[in-house]
Amino acid sequence: MTGYILGIDGGGTSCRAALADQAGTMLGRGKSGASNILTDPDTALRHITEAARLAFEDAGLTADLGSASAILGLAGNNVGDAVGYVTARLPFKASQIVSDGVIALQGAIGDEDGAIGIVGTGTVYIIRDQGQFKSIAGWGFQVSDLGSGARLGQLALQESLLAFDKIRPMSALTEAILQEFDGNPELIVDFARLAKPGDFGRYTPKVFEFAGRNDETALRILKAGANGVDEALDAVSAVTGAKGKLCLLGGLAPLYPPYLSERHRIRLSEPRADALTGAVELAVKAYAGKAEMRA
Amino acid sequence: MTGYILGIDGGGTSCRAALADQAGTMLGRGKSGASNILTDPDTALRHITEAARLAFEDAGLTADLGSASAILGLAGNNVGDAVGYVTARLPFKASQIVSDGVIALQGAIGDEDGAIGIVGTGTVYIIRDQGQFKSIAGWGFQVSDLGSGARLGQLALQESLLAFDKIRPMSALTEAILQEFDGNPELIVDFARLAKPGDFGRYTPKVFEFAGRNDETALRILKAGANGVDEALDAVSAVTGAKGKLCLLGGLAPLYPPYLSERHRIRLSEPRADALTGAVELAVKAYAGKAEMRA
Repeated sequence: MTGYILGIDGGGTSCRAALADQAGTMLGRGKSGASNILTDPDTALRHITEAARLAFEDAGLTADLGSASAILGLAGNNVGDAVGYVTARLPFKASQIVSDGVIALQGAIGDEDGAIGIVGTGTVYIIRDQGQFKSIAGWGFQVSDLGSGARLGQLALQESLLAFDKIRPMSALTEAILQEFDGNPELIVDFARLAKPGDFGRYTPKVFEFAGRNDETALRILKAGANGVDEALDAVSAVTGAKGKLCLLGGLAPLYPPYLSERHRIRLSEPRADALTGAVELAVKAYAGKAEMRA
Repeated sequence: MTGYILGIDGGGTSCRAALADQAGTMLGRGKSGASNILTDPDTALRHITEAARLAFEDAGLTADLGSASAILGLAGNNVGDAVGYVTARLPFKASQIVSDGVIALQGAIGDEDGAIGIVGTGTVYIIRDQGQFKSIAGWGFQVSDLGSGARLGQLALQESLLAFDKIRPMSALTEAILQEFDGNPELIVDFARLAKPGDFGRYTPKVFEFAGRNDETALRILKAGANGVDEALDAVSAVTGAKGKLCLLGGLAPLYPPYLSERHRIRLSEPRADALTGAVELAVKAYAGKAEMRA
């Protein structure tokens, strides 16, 4: 037993684990629940352990967590206290916690310099420049993340109220949204007051759908959103230059390109693998061959 | 004793009362605390009663609340349950609750048709058209009230994070705001997550201040804000036509005009009186001379 390799990809809704041998060959996978180490570290620990155990089982092996060395890409990793608490309690032989963005970048572009833009409910941009990581945006929908799903959905509700008040023209999009709220603007206000990013984001598919039918309001919202993404990608390019891969990931990645500036669109490439694969790659790099040396 | 007239102007932070005789001559004034009948009707009742009592005292009279007929312009008046609950418990001979916007409009433009725009922490526009009231915007900063103090302050924080991330250029305004947060964007995020409209609004004076020194970011924020106000005033004009008075009220009223479109700026006039005076006028109209008829 020279030791297994584990890659872990953990976030606010689920935790995925992949077990590999020292050459990086995938042996099995497992999935469990939420693993945000900042908001609930004990639950995160339980779900990380469970996903790892399931990956052993999926590989047809008896779960021997103490024989595995892991790289964990976890949401909430930017707070030192949480990282220390969780790292000390993980059941693996060796563990290293990095950001979920770092494993996503490794999966998408491999070892090269380059950047990813994660455009989902939030937006964040991760750059690797001469081996150094740098992140842009990702501060949340209240004061950041222009063009994110949360912001687009929020704008759709705002446009619906503006149309209700005849400040801007009604369109098919705003009519459809008002109908969802029984034509009652107060219900929109009640909803918006307590809405979390994902709640706003539920209206975002509608924005893309109606924009596809040339709805003026939907196109205006997407123009503003795409401008936010374009500006962030300009800031990315100011660091990377025109070199290196540039990938979009996240739920809006397949939808945004037609609306982005051509200077960015022509640079986009498909991600080569997912974040979990990225975690395994980083774990192989960090641990493979070193197990025997330590023993 | 033919009965006194009371005007009440109550909102989220204070409650003011003015006592007058049946001719509308002011006899005394009183001020107490918050009186939002929607969020806390019992406290509102207590503060309304206290302000009225103080107005009697200010006039050198023994407080005889049951001899007074009142018009109350109150925040939160758009919810029927609250109005019924409070009206039934008021100590006056006769009471009528109207919106705070209606007494503000009466104070500002008197009996004529016309409109007011209240531009403060929030924004709301009230129109009187052939005696009928209509209100535009005022749905809160999450999805409405473009150009309000809350929205301008929120934009100032957003621009500070965009500048921190080098997505947009740093300016003196964003530098000053970042400094207030020890240059730490996470403190801005923490603040914004829990910020109420008034919390965001605290950064708005800075925006006007730096715009006055031609700060590019401050000017961009104010251009967006003024555009929001201009668009709402266009919707107002679509109802009123070019006729009737148009007044801006609220904390930002003295600051906004230079940034507004000329088509609106040339129509603006100074309000003739405040909301409390408007409440007294409406009370005189509603009750004066009628006390004897009823008795």
